[in-house]
Amino acid sequence: MASLAPGKKHKVTIVGSGNWRGSTIAKVVAENTAAHPELFEKDVQMWVYEENVKVDGSSEPRKLTELINERHENPKYLPGIALPHHIIANPSIEDAVKDSTILVFNLPHQFIKGLCRQIKGAILPYARGISCIKGVDVRESEIRLFSETIGQELGIYCGALSGANIANEVAQEKWCETTIAYDPPSIDSQTPTPARTPPNRTPASSQLDLTKLNEHKDVSGKPSKVMLRPLPAEYHPIDQPLMKTLFHRPYFHVRVVSDVAGVSLSGALKNIVALAAGWVDGLGWGDNAKAAIMRVGLLEMVDFGKRFFGKTIQTKTFTEESAGVADLITTCSGGRNHRCAKMSVVEGKPIKEIEARELNGQQLQGVSTAEEVNIFLKSQGLEKDFPLFTAVSKILRGEEKYQDLPGLIESRTEADGNEMA
Amino acid sequence: MASLAPGKKHKVTIVGSGNWRGSTIAKVVAENTAAHPELFEKDVQMWVYEENVKVDGSSEPRKLTELINERHENPKYLPGIALPHHIIANPSIEDAVKDSTILVFNLPHQFIKGLCRQIKGAILPYARGISCIKGVDVRESEIRLFSETIGQELGIYCGALSGANIANEVAQEKWCETTIAYDPPSIDSQTPTPARTPPNRTPASSQLDLTKLNEHKDVSGKPSKVMLRPLPAEYHPIDQPLMKTLFHRPYFHVRVVSDVAGVSLSGALKNIVALAAGWVDGLGWGDNAKAAIMRVGLLEMVDFGKRFFGKTIQTKTFTEESAGVADLITTCSGGRNHRCAKMSVVEGKPIKEIEARELNGQQLQGVSTAEEVNIFLKSQGLEKDFPLFTAVSKILRGEEKYQDLPGLIESRTEADGNEMA
Repeated sequence: MASLAPGKKHKVTIVGSGNWRGSTIAKVVAENTAAHPELFEKDVQMWVYEENVKVDGSSEPRKLTELINERHENPKYLPGIALPHHIIANPSIEDAVKDSTILVFNLPHQFIKGLCRQIKGAILPYARGISCIKGVDVRESEIRLFSETIGQELGIYCGALSGANIANEVAQEKWCETTIAYDPPSIDSQTPTPARTPPNRTPASSQLDLTKLNEHKDVSGKPSKVMLRPLPAEYHPIDQPLMKTLFHRPYFHVRVVSDVAGVSLSGALKNIVALAAGWVDGLGWGDNAKAAIMRVGLLEMVDFGKRFFGKTIQTKTFTEESAGVADLITTCSGGRNHRCAKMSVVEGKPIKEIEARELNGQQLQGVSTAEEVNIFLKSQGLEKDFPLFTAVSKILRGEEKYQDLPGLIESRTEADGNEMA
Repeated sequence: MASLAPGKKHKVTIVGSGNWRGSTIAKVVAENTAAHPELFEKDVQMWVYEENVKVDGSSEPRKLTELINERHENPKYLPGIALPHHIIANPSIEDAVKDSTILVFNLPHQFIKGLCRQIKGAILPYARGISCIKGVDVRESEIRLFSETIGQELGIYCGALSGANIANEVAQEKWCETTIAYDPPSIDSQTPTPARTPPNRTPASSQLDLTKLNEHKDVSGKPSKVMLRPLPAEYHPIDQPLMKTLFHRPYFHVRVVSDVAGVSLSGALKNIVALAAGWVDGLGWGDNAKAAIMRVGLLEMVDFGKRFFGKTIQTKTFTEESAGVADLITTCSGGRNHRCAKMSVVEGKPIKEIEARELNGQQLQGVSTAEEVNIFLKSQGLEKDFPLFTAVSKILRGEEKYQDLPGLIESRTEADGNEMA
């Protein structure tokens, strides 16, 4: 009979790159590992892409990881925000992920595949992931979410976190909400753990279930070759309540859902909409016009999800959750894609020029996502069914003008609501 | 056999009060009556509550109706916007509605019942209405939409128009969308009219249908005592396509739906949400927090509709149409309720004081709607089920503080998305 002693603690690693979003989420997570010592090891590893940084006007550049660990602040990407002392910046990714049962991914998407190959042998085979990465992984006629890519490359289950979470506001502990999508096949929850096994369920019966459930389907409903490894019985199960405990803060309210595809996809596609909203704002067309663009964008996000990730997608993830409509709203108000698109109209300059000037070498997510979604839609012969997404990519390529947006999306604004049902 | 000659033209009256919204919608409608002479009489009557107005620094006040008809401009409420010459401002409501088959209501809701009593004998008994009025009609434990109130008081069918339509932007012909909800019982569409009757459908069979359909249900699903009168056969039917033709402009894109309750209710309830969004903006809590408030507000709008107007309400009216999510967005950006609520926080003054200073004697819709919705929820013992609506009314009464909003709505931000399903 199982004892009631607490299970083995989980070690958490932020697979970031030292950027502002990675540091922000590390702060949230580290506050919770300290608050819940019965569940988590206090120390949180944060992988930081090593670079030399000059600070305080000193002429001598210093290593970013050393600065973070000395000052408990990320002086390059999140200056002025105190980080918990038990965030350990680590320049070695292999070392950072070692023995971690929970991996939180938050890095520019162009690095993901390389990084996954690098850590595949270093992670625990039964680790679980949460992807905070925006964007979609397109290879011509194939489209995947980064939560899927990570899951498949590493052979682990990977959920997603996304929401109305402009990072500097979260870092300042301004109140907001987020959405975590996490719905691993029942392999985890049926693994008996000391604290939660009901007296009449034996380990033997669980193992029977494991065999049956080992071949799981990925979020798009496509059969996946990943063979999930069960979490050893001495750990607390990594389930929805545990994920909520790891991320929920008084200023960061977590709602948990099961729709990983909906949450990942919203986080990616909203950036396309934000570009169009930014152009309309730059043109001075007013709040009504901007709201119309956002409404049409939301409809295309839902449609895209239903069409290409049909089986598990839920409309309400887009229309009712923080990862959906709320993130769209905040992204079209204070986000970088919106801001740069607006500037490009006001200043009459190409968005690439604004991006280079404003973002310190970083890239606008909306620009690459618009291109990738367009490559995919073209491969399917479906550009016309997504007039806003298509218009944005054509405007980015100079094939259409942002002034013509209303005409370009007329099939959405003219069709009657009854007919769309 | 019916001839193919066009039917009798429709006369349209704007039952406004001379205000900015009434003048704006009169402009839209008059442009379309001129563009579609086969369907509409060109002249559009606009009832204007007569007042004496001083303009151009002259010491002699003049009648507002005379000024509008001479200058083709509403110098008091919509200065600088040229109105079509065939808008006829009329101080006599009985005269303005005479012989009109289509009545467009756009006046402050406190005047509706009195006005309906005044015109009941003056209108055509088979007229049809469109209500652009925001707000709900509450009598303690009973709640009705103004489209219902108008329909019942006048014994006519009344649809609704609402959308992301801040009036001064529409008046300036800035591109936007709107939603018309119009779904009369089939009494109208089955009235044979010369142009549309298929050869094998005779007037006789239609009259049979009329008898059956005369006792219609109102939008809330409650049985109504209204006995609808069929439109005489010589008219074009007043159906969804006709309504679209009357309101659609290149800068004012109309989508037609059937959910009158959803459209009316969104237009009312969003103003409550806008107050909370304004407070959060005034507090400087950032875009994430504001988006969270709007998300929670949208959920309560849907819930309220489902609970009290259940049978005909569709969630997607709120989450996908201009009258829903888009209007919520624009109202929480540039609307008066949001602006005054924000000012009241920034200046540390009661909202009533801001309202008096900013609105020239007009009232903030959100304040009265919040109070009315609260009276109704109290009567049902359901205040707790609508934490945001309840919080707003308590904050308005000084029983709670806007700083405590996150705690007050915790039951919405803490509950998991799966559980809410």
